[in-house]
Amino acid sequence: MARKPLDYEELNENVKKTQYAVRGELYLRASELQKEGKKIIFTNVGNPHALGQKPLTFPRQVVALCQAPFLLDDPNVGLMFPADAIARAKHYLSLAPGGLGAYSDSRGIPGIRKEVADFIQRRDGYPSDPELIYLTDGASKGVMQMLNTIIRNERDGILVPVPQYPLYSAAIALFGGSLVPYYLEEEANWGLDFVNIRQTVSEARSKGITVLFDMGPPLSREVQLVSFHTVSKGFWGECGQRGGYFEMTNLPPKTVDEIYKVASIALSPNVPGQIFMGVMVNPPKPGDISYLKFSSESKSILESLRRRARMMTDGFNSCRNVVCNFTEGAMYSFPQIRLPPRAIEAAKRAGKAADVFYCLKLLEATGISTVPGSGFGQKEGVFHLRTTILPAEEDFPAIISSFKNFNDSFMAQYEGYSRM
Amino acid sequence: MARKPLDYEELNENVKKTQYAVRGELYLRASELQKEGKKIIFTNVGNPHALGQKPLTFPRQVVALCQAPFLLDDPNVGLMFPADAIARAKHYLSLAPGGLGAYSDSRGIPGIRKEVADFIQRRDGYPSDPELIYLTDGASKGVMQMLNTIIRNERDGILVPVPQYPLYSAAIALFGGSLVPYYLEEEANWGLDFVNIRQTVSEARSKGITVLFDMGPPLSREVQLVSFHTVSKGFWGECGQRGGYFEMTNLPPKTVDEIYKVASIALSPNVPGQIFMGVMVNPPKPGDISYLKFSSESKSILESLRRRARMMTDGFNSCRNVVCNFTEGAMYSFPQIRLPPRAIEAAKRAGKAADVFYCLKLLEATGISTVPGSGFGQKEGVFHLRTTILPAEEDFPAIISSFKNFNDSFMAQYEGYSRM
Repeated sequence: MARKPLDYEELNENVKKTQYAVRGELYLRASELQKEGKKIIFTNVGNPHALGQKPLTFPRQVVALCQAPFLLDDPNVGLMFPADAIARAKHYLSLAPGGLGAYSDSRGIPGIRKEVADFIQRRDGYPSDPELIYLTDGASKGVMQMLNTIIRNERDGILVPVPQYPLYSAAIALFGGSLVPYYLEEEANWGLDFVNIRQTVSEARSKGITVLFDMGPPLSREVQLVSFHTVSKGFWGECGQRGGYFEMTNLPPKTVDEIYKVASIALSPNVPGQIFMGVMVNPPKPGDISYLKFSSESKSILESLRRRARMMTDGFNSCRNVVCNFTEGAMYSFPQIRLPPRAIEAAKRAGKAADVFYCLKLLEATGISTVPGSGFGQKEGVFHLRTTILPAEEDFPAIISSFKNFNDSFMAQYEGYSRM
Repeated sequence: MARKPLDYEELNENVKKTQYAVRGELYLRASELQKEGKKIIFTNVGNPHALGQKPLTFPRQVVALCQAPFLLDDPNVGLMFPADAIARAKHYLSLAPGGLGAYSDSRGIPGIRKEVADFIQRRDGYPSDPELIYLTDGASKGVMQMLNTIIRNERDGILVPVPQYPLYSAAIALFGGSLVPYYLEEEANWGLDFVNIRQTVSEARSKGITVLFDMGPPLSREVQLVSFHTVSKGFWGECGQRGGYFEMTNLPPKTVDEIYKVASIALSPNVPGQIFMGVMVNPPKPGDISYLKFSSESKSILESLRRRARMMTDGFNSCRNVVCNFTEGAMYSFPQIRLPPRAIEAAKRAGKAADVFYCLKLLEATGISTVPGSGFGQKEGVFHLRTTILPAEEDFPAIISSFKNFNDSFMAQYEGYSRM
C-alpha cells in the first residue's frame, strides 16, 4: 500500500529523534495508572498551582479587570476590587489599544517591554533597551524561537550544562543541531568546572562541530547573550498563563530583525500573559493599598518553598544509598541514587535504563511520579531522579515515608540482604 | 574580526529566506510614519478589536471569573456577573485542576477537547474523537507545529492555494520545505481549477519534489486531514487571547504520538485561550440568562461585517482600474489593481515590485496601510493589494474616498492623462 504523507515513516526524522523526558514514559505510565484509579502524586513537572499553590491575588485582579473591562464602568466594582488593581488595569488597557482581544506588536506591547527594561535596569544597574526585549508565550517558546533562528545543521553545537532542562535537548534535536554537554559538579553543589568545558569544546571541535552558544552564565559587555524570564517559575507559578520575555545583549541589529521576523509569523504572544509579566516586573510597592496583602502572600509562598526544600533534601539524605544537594533557587530536587550492581543488571534484563527501572518501580509501588535522571543527563554509571518540591506541605511526611519504605525494600532486594 | 555565533552571517539560512508580508516592509514603514505623528489606518492584519470591535460579553465574564476565582466566593458576585457566567466559570475550573495558573495536558484540557469534539459532531454529523483534537495558542501555532512535524527537506512540497495566507509560505520556508502553489481563479470568485492543480503537481514532481500535503478542501474517509480553528477569526475576533485547536482525521496513531511529543516540548497552550475555545464551541443557548445579549451582540457584529464587506467591494469597484470580488466568509478584500505599464516601469526604476510601489504610495498619501498582493502570491503580471474590512463603519466613507482620490491621481499620472 502506498504511504501517505502523514504516515509515521514519512515524518521529519528530527521530530522522531526528539525526546522529552518530562512528559515521557514515566508520565504516560502515571497517566495510565491514574485512569485505572490509582492516586498519583505528579512531581514530574514544575507546576505549582496544579499541586495546590494559590495564585497571588493582585495580578489576578488586574488581569481579570483587563479581561472584562466593562467591570470598570460598573458602580459596584469598588466592592470587589481594590483601587490600585483598578488603576493598574486601566494603565494596561491604555498600553494595549484594543485590549486583550487584539494582537499586539509581535515583540509584545511596547509599554510592557518598557516596564521590563526598567526592571532589568533597577535589578542589574545597567541600562536596558525595550527594543531588545521581546515578550513570549512563556520562556520555552522564546528558547525554541532562538534555537530555531541559530541552528543550521548537525554541525552546529550548543553547549548545555548537564544536568540540563530537557527543553534544550528536545529543541536542539527538533531543529537538527548537536547538543554539546558539559557536566556540572555534583560534589561542588552543581558548580561549574572550566577544565571540563574546555575538554568538551575541544572534543566537539574534533568531531567537526563548531561550538556556537553557551546557555551557561558567562557575561560581559562583549559576549552575545540572550537571557530569559517567565511568570511560570519563580514563586508566582503562573505556568498556565504562558508569559515570558527574552532580552538580547550585544546582538547585531540585523540579527535582531531576523528574530523579529520569526516572532511575527505567529503574530503575537498572548496578551493576558504579557500583562502578568508587566505586573511581575512592577509589583505593588510599599504604600500601595494591595502592598501588604501581596507581600504577605509572597512571603508565605517563599517560606513554604524553603521549608519544603529542606524537608525534601533531608528526607532523601535519610534514605539508604541516596544523596541529595540542597535546593537553593529552584523548585526541584535531583538526588543521586546509588544503584546496586544487581539492580543495574535487572534493569538491563528488563530492557530499561537503570534509572528508568527504579523510577517505574517507585511509581508502581507508591504513585510518586518522578523523572529519571537520564532525561536531564548524568555522568556515565551515575543515576538520579528528578522530583519537584511542590506537593502540599502537609503531604510531605507521608510522601517521604512512602519513598523511604520503597527505597529500603528496593535496596534490600538488590543488595541481596533479603528476598522480598 | 572573528564572527560571533549570533552574527547575521551565522544564522539559519532558512530563517533569512523566510518572508512574512503581513508585517513586512509596508507595516514597518507605516509604524515609522505613525511614530512621526501621521494618522495610520492599519488594515494589514485581521485584528478586529484593534480597530474598535467590542468583545462579546459572556466569554469575557467567564474567563474573568476563572482568572479571579476568589470572586466566586464574594457575596457581591451576583451584582456584577450573571448566574450562567458564574456557573460556566465553575464548570471550567472543575475541568482545570489548579485553574488558569497550572500547565494543562500538552494537548489541552481533556474536558474542553471533549466540548470541541461534541461541537464538530453536531456541526458535521460525523463522530469526532477528543483524543485527536489538540488545543493550541491560536491556529498559527498549530499550523507551524504540524509543518515542523512533516517537513524533512526542500524536496518536500506543500500544495498551497494562491492567493495564500503568508503564514504558510513563511512557515514552509522556516522549516526548509518547498511551497507548491496552485492558483485560485479570480474570475470564478477565487474558485478551484483542478486542471491547474494537476499541472502544478506534475511540474513539482519533475523537479524532484514529492507532493505531500494539500492545505485545500478535499475530504473523504481515506484522506489524511488536519483541520484548524481559532477564536481569532470568525466574528469573535479574540486574536490576542491566542486560542485554537486542530483535529486530526485518518492519521496513524504513531504520527499522533509524534505530534503530541512536539506539543509537549512547549508544555501547554495558554489556559485562558483554551477556555475561550470552550465557550466558542459551546455558546449560551436559548433559555440561558445570557442568551439574548450574546445573540444580539453576535448578530450586530455579523451584520456590520456584511455591510462593511459590501461598502468595501463597491468602493473598490467604483475606482478606475480596480476590480474586486465580494468578501464572502472572511474579513479581507483582495482587489486587483490594473497597473499601467508606466507605473510598472517606474516601480522597476525604484527597485520595487509594482504592487509594493503602489501600496507604499497609497500609504504615504493616505495613511492606509495595506499588504501588497505579492505577499500572498498572484499570477505573473497581475497585481493586487490586500486590505481588511475591519475599520469602524462610520470611517468607511472617508477611507473609500481617500483611496479613490489617491487611485485617481496615481492612474492619471501613470496613464499619462495629466502630470500631477
